[in-house]
Amino acid sequence: MTEFSAIGQRMRLVDGQPKITGQIRYAADLNIPGLLHARFVTSPHAHATIKSIDAEAALALPGVVAVLTAQDMPDILPTNRQRLLLARERAIFVGQPVALVVAESEAAAQDGVEQVMVDYEALPAALTIDEALATDAPLVWPNGVPGESGEAAAHGADVGGEEGSARKSSNVASRSHFNKGDLAAGFAEADVVVERIFTTAMVHQSPLETHATVVQIDPLTNGVTVYSSTQAPYHVRKQVADVLGMEESDIRSVSTPLGGAFGGKFVLYEPLVALAAKAVNRSVSLVLTRQEELLASNPAPSGRIRVKLGAKRDGSFTALEAEIVFNGGCYPSSPVGIAMVLTGSLYQVPNFELNGLEVLTFKPSSGAYRAPGIPQASFALESVVDEVANQLGLDPLELRLKNASKSGDPMVHGENWASIGMIEVLKTLQQHPAWQNRAAAQAAGRGVGIGIGGWPGGVEPASAACTLERDGTVHVHLSSVDMSGTNTGFALIAAEAFGVSPDKVRIITGDTNGAVYAGAAGGSKITYTVGPAVIQAAEEARKHVLSIAAELIEADPADLEIVNGRVQVKGAPDSGISLGDIAGKTMQFGGKYAPVFGHGRHVDTTRSPGFCAQLAEVEVDQETGDVRVHKLVIVQDVGRAINPATVEGQMMGGAMQGLGWALYERTEYDSYGQLLTASWMDYTVPHIHQGALEMETVIVEVPTDHGPFGARGVGEPPIIPTAGAVANAIAHATGTRLTDLPMTPPRVLAALSRKPVDGNGSAP
Amino acid sequence: MTEFSAIGQRMRLVDGQPKITGQIRYAADLNIPGLLHARFVTSPHAHATIKSIDAEAALALPGVVAVLTAQDMPDILPTNRQRLLLARERAIFVGQPVALVVAESEAAAQDGVEQVMVDYEALPAALTIDEALATDAPLVWPNGVPGESGEAAAHGADVGGEEGSARKSSNVASRSHFNKGDLAAGFAEADVVVERIFTTAMVHQSPLETHATVVQIDPLTNGVTVYSSTQAPYHVRKQVADVLGMEESDIRSVSTPLGGAFGGKFVLYEPLVALAAKAVNRSVSLVLTRQEELLASNPAPSGRIRVKLGAKRDGSFTALEAEIVFNGGCYPSSPVGIAMVLTGSLYQVPNFELNGLEVLTFKPSSGAYRAPGIPQASFALESVVDEVANQLGLDPLELRLKNASKSGDPMVHGENWASIGMIEVLKTLQQHPAWQNRAAAQAAGRGVGIGIGGWPGGVEPASAACTLERDGTVHVHLSSVDMSGTNTGFALIAAEAFGVSPDKVRIITGDTNGAVYAGAAGGSKITYTVGPAVIQAAEEARKHVLSIAAELIEADPADLEIVNGRVQVKGAPDSGISLGDIAGKTMQFGGKYAPVFGHGRHVDTTRSPGFCAQLAEVEVDQETGDVRVHKLVIVQDVGRAINPATVEGQMMGGAMQGLGWALYERTEYDSYGQLLTASWMDYTVPHIHQGALEMETVIVEVPTDHGPFGARGVGEPPIIPTAGAVANAIAHATGTRLTDLPMTPPRVLAALSRKPVDGNGSAP
Repeated sequence: MTEFSAIGQRMRLVDGQPKITGQIRYAADLNIPGLLHARFVTSPHAHATIKSIDAEAALALPGVVAVLTAQDMPDILPTNRQRLLLARERAIFVGQPVALVVAESEAAAQDGVEQVMVDYEALPAALTIDEALATDAPLVWPNGVPGESGEAAAHGADVGGEEGSARKSSNVASRSHFNKGDLAAGFAEADVVVERIFTTAMVHQSPLETHATVVQIDPLTNGVTVYSSTQAPYHVRKQVADVLGMEESDIRSVSTPLGGAFGGKFVLYEPLVALAAKAVNRSVSLVLTRQEELLASNPAPSGRIRVKLGAKRDGSFTALEAEIVFNGGCYPSSPVGIAMVLTGSLYQVPNFELNGLEVLTFKPSSGAYRAPGIPQASFALESVVDEVANQLGLDPLELRLKNASKSGDPMVHGENWASIGMIEVLKTLQQHPAWQNRAAAQAAGRGVGIGIGGWPGGVEPASAACTLERDGTVHVHLSSVDMSGTNTGFALIAAEAFGVSPDKVRIITGDTNGAVYAGAAGGSKITYTVGPAVIQAAEEARKHVLSIAAELIEADPADLEIVNGRVQVKGAPDSGISLGDIAGKTMQFGGKYAPVFGHGRHVDTTRSPGFCAQLAEVEVDQETGDVRVHKLVIVQDVGRAINPATVEGQMMGGAMQGLGWALYERTEYDSYGQLLTASWMDYTVPHIHQGALEMETVIVEVPTDHGPFGARGVGEPPIIPTAGAVANAIAHATGTRLTDLPMTPPRVLAALSRKPVDGNGSAP
Repeated sequence: MTEFSAIGQRMRLVDGQPKITGQIRYAADLNIPGLLHARFVTSPHAHATIKSIDAEAALALPGVVAVLTAQDMPDILPTNRQRLLLARERAIFVGQPVALVVAESEAAAQDGVEQVMVDYEALPAALTIDEALATDAPLVWPNGVPGESGEAAAHGADVGGEEGSARKSSNVASRSHFNKGDLAAGFAEADVVVERIFTTAMVHQSPLETHATVVQIDPLTNGVTVYSSTQAPYHVRKQVADVLGMEESDIRSVSTPLGGAFGGKFVLYEPLVALAAKAVNRSVSLVLTRQEELLASNPAPSGRIRVKLGAKRDGSFTALEAEIVFNGGCYPSSPVGIAMVLTGSLYQVPNFELNGLEVLTFKPSSGAYRAPGIPQASFALESVVDEVANQLGLDPLELRLKNASKSGDPMVHGENWASIGMIEVLKTLQQHPAWQNRAAAQAAGRGVGIGIGGWPGGVEPASAACTLERDGTVHVHLSSVDMSGTNTGFALIAAEAFGVSPDKVRIITGDTNGAVYAGAAGGSKITYTVGPAVIQAAEEARKHVLSIAAELIEADPADLEIVNGRVQVKGAPDSGISLGDIAGKTMQFGGKYAPVFGHGRHVDTTRSPGFCAQLAEVEVDQETGDVRVHKLVIVQDVGRAINPATVEGQMMGGAMQGLGWALYERTEYDSYGQLLTASWMDYTVPHIHQGALEMETVIVEVPTDHGPFGARGVGEPPIIPTAGAVANAIAHATGTRLTDLPMTPPRVLAALSRKPVDGNGSAP
């Protein structure tokens, strides 16, 4: 077993202190002299022609500087949501920005919004999957569906598969298909076949901090600096450059500290705000209100998933059929492909047929949300697997173990699973007392259910640099956004590789003008992809330091070690020279040694998927339908826990959001496309007391050969299996199968009484 | 002869456009929300005890936030000028900051200053060299002279030599001494001996932009960000960290665009402003007025130089004796050592004795000013050399050629000259028509004189990074301050090394939090030391790009070339792939190639001195004493002219400042230590019409093996020989030798009439 000095330490977040003391400056806190504030005029119609916009009264208000409409914007093809800018002639969802009021204060902007008169002619709208697929459905894009945004691809959800091109003159954005073997023969072989249809809701990422962008004109160039709450500064740079018609080098994108993102903050309104700043030639800030965030951002799509699974008496799966339909809103970007891949590849099934369909509707387009597409797929598949176990009278965990995919097994899209720990995760959960004692729990009126899922992980080239300073600290320079504590992990990684204490490491995050590159903080790939670059940079810097020290103290570099911030001959503390003194000799007039500067360039196209299994122990109130989660056990293969404290934080945070999917969260529209859940009074993000009474994390470490010190991506897996585990626990407690998320009390009551429920949830 | 694609192009300054359009943001333009403004209460006495400071009335004024005195500052040892902070108990020069008024506006701060009542008890002060050396002189530092600031050392002026330690209980800061051979025998051997005493004035660097510092408390840490008009951000970081008692990593030093510096902007009031910001816990700006700049910054020291030179009839020098005394003001930091080295090493003299003396007085301490110490030394030495030629009836240029130092010749301090081009510079000047026709000029009532000098050059470790962006531009990351057009030169250097057009290169200057290091922009060493790191970084990046392209287009990297922003098989333009496309493949999800990231680490302790000779053709108005410079020819060995446009700009700018030394500039104090030249109405920075009517630059290229593409430092040499050349031209025109700078009309008239002048210049 490897001995680590830093890896595995429980280290506090490097930015924890400023965060809890309120010292941190989010994008909305930026106070640039002469800063203007922008606010949207939004469409009240899901679909309407815009006949005219009268800004005269708004412009007459004190403090209002400009009212921008599509006429003030370049007439670019709205090939992705970020390029939709302001509605031109036609609005296609309730909440769509139609005009932008720019004023000296937010209040003046809001006053202006109320005075802008827009003359609409309402048009019929299709809101649900079925409405959108009707033959006479109004079309979101009558002239053809725009090209994909590439955002799902960036998040790791671009997995290939056959894709039809039924895009013209319909609301179908894409069809995809995977199959293998003989489906009919597979089902014929089965002793049990279970088929169910599931629905999942449109769920919002709900970061505490809404989307916020501040754009400043660069006084030295014609370019702009974009400060925004983004996971993806290089995406922002590219999109802003594109709409401004400038080169990427003209744009500096700075990611401000994230107050939550969860996949929803790649690029959204940065191009619009950049155009607004250019139009008025002043700095402009746009900070969404919570209502705007819920109306006009990019939530996870709602979906309908049909799963049919056949198995023999011994539990081996024989055939799988699935149809996955996502309601993607007004742009094609929902993660149907990745949902299909997980559905078909989690278990090894010899015969399968999978069909995916992405439908466009008059709703906001969907964006990435933690493990995009997979919580939905896992909920459906894991529910059916439990039903199969039930009907066969088999242990549901053993049934999973029997069919679980292993390293090297094929996936539906032709690739093979890389090294994975699905079996190890299941076996670890199997030993847990809560699983061992599930019969007792059931006898006490509770139910125990499990679920599992995996996230393939992301890959992207990355670079990093490492320097040594005169105060003896090691500086690590990178450009990845600090999300989920990644910078704290990098402090540990650099400390391990360089040979110093983690508190002697400073992480310096550059903007897009920096020398180092990292992809978007999404897809559970920052530690995985940037970590190796940090190791390379730190090791190169260490080597350089040892070579300088060797010359200074006349020793062989191989005989040297770094102990307590000093380089010394092994075992001879008196021989040493401090790191700070070495740095000083590289940073002085006439110095004989080059500045300590290690650089790392990393590329690796092998993903290292991470699996998470969860166990829920629930109690169902038969009178109210309320589901109480007594216990939630989260078992996850993280490869290597760089910082167990943040790893556990991710596991708990993901599972908490999983509980939101399972029991609470739903973005609800009425039949006219009006948002019914436009505030956090109506949209239920679970409070801490609505979570599990007891939440337990169990870290499994099946190291990969690719991540830093064996680490895998940690962020996405823990949100995946929660809904399935809770549904299975409800079934275990009540004998009743729930198939619609969220499993609200009315739905639970209805299921218990086997009656359909009205007004308890719109069609997906 | 090497063929260059980019080196040698005349390229416009990369920051020229924002500078001439007023878009550039200097430190004084920074507009931080809540920014406070500071203004000094200064001492009206050259020497006084501070009995009390009453701030009550000032604090009662609207807008005044605080009146800080030494009591509010840490009681640190004032070991260098930057640590002098505010006068504690005793003021030691007129203009010394005694209190700092911090207010909501500059006007409020100024109002506050006028209400602060300081009770002084005036004490006797020593102001001139002779006063300071008197046995009963009041002592600037009764308890011992503080340690050196290290600034002269950083500038390249720390040259060793024996140093006495007569520091206690006197105003002598240092004595130094070099000697060789038998001085008496040398003079005995001589056929001619000339001995003269010269004086030079205290001259101010006179940047258009005064010293300006803005300090912001870092909202994320306890540290500060220091924006200042500095040549030396890493020096600022260190000094600020020291006075705040923090680690260097807590301080971010950002160099704002320089509106001139010329050596005077290393570190001065940054530590004080940082302490002020900490004291009031808000951002604080201090922008010196012109009066404060002249009263309380760090000009070049005045001096008295005695030179005695012996030569044989054939012109060979036999003995040299020199005594160089600088009046350094209140701190020891004047460049006596480097002045001695030039005096003794410019020519090869077998017997010499050199004595240096640095005297402290009750004046502001001196700082570096373009080629510190050398204009004074060259003026004295070159005047005497001309007198020797005159007395021997030899051609003064031939006399110089006969004795000139060559590569490898010894210098007085034990080192040998590296590769130098003194001979080449003299021979080039010899061919110039203005020299060839000097007899005709003399016949027409003019005089033609020459002078020469050299600057040893500086060395310091440096690093740089190079990346490739999706828009096909090459980004060069470095941390050197862009002074005298260095960034424009780096664009050419990187273009040459990478193989792109210079307009496709962007230079990104990082602050002290960046990954790359460079020393202070001083000592003519930025291009010389950072340039090779840029070449390394660009070449490494190019190599990486070619290896990616080779894989993409299935070719051998050796067969590839970069043409017009595309990598192609040599001679096959259709085979290519654009640099932007290659960058894109390294910066995308799933990319197979690591980000292009070249890094350079450079160290070289060999200096490459640069020599400059000048010819002045003057006309002296016998009635007014006015000296009209008709022609100034500047011949300089720059090793390699990276950008001839900026090289010529440096040569002309330096020579123009040299004319200031020669004819106009003098910081004048009365016998009480009151500054008489406290504005630009009184202190004469030459206007353009006071310069030479015709100024001609001649570039000589004697490449060094060490600088980038053979380049030497360019900045300092052209200021050196001007005063000597003008003095020799006056002598040639009038037969009269002037020995005191500046050679103002009253002094010229007095010399012509051989009468002493009263009231025309204080003793040095």
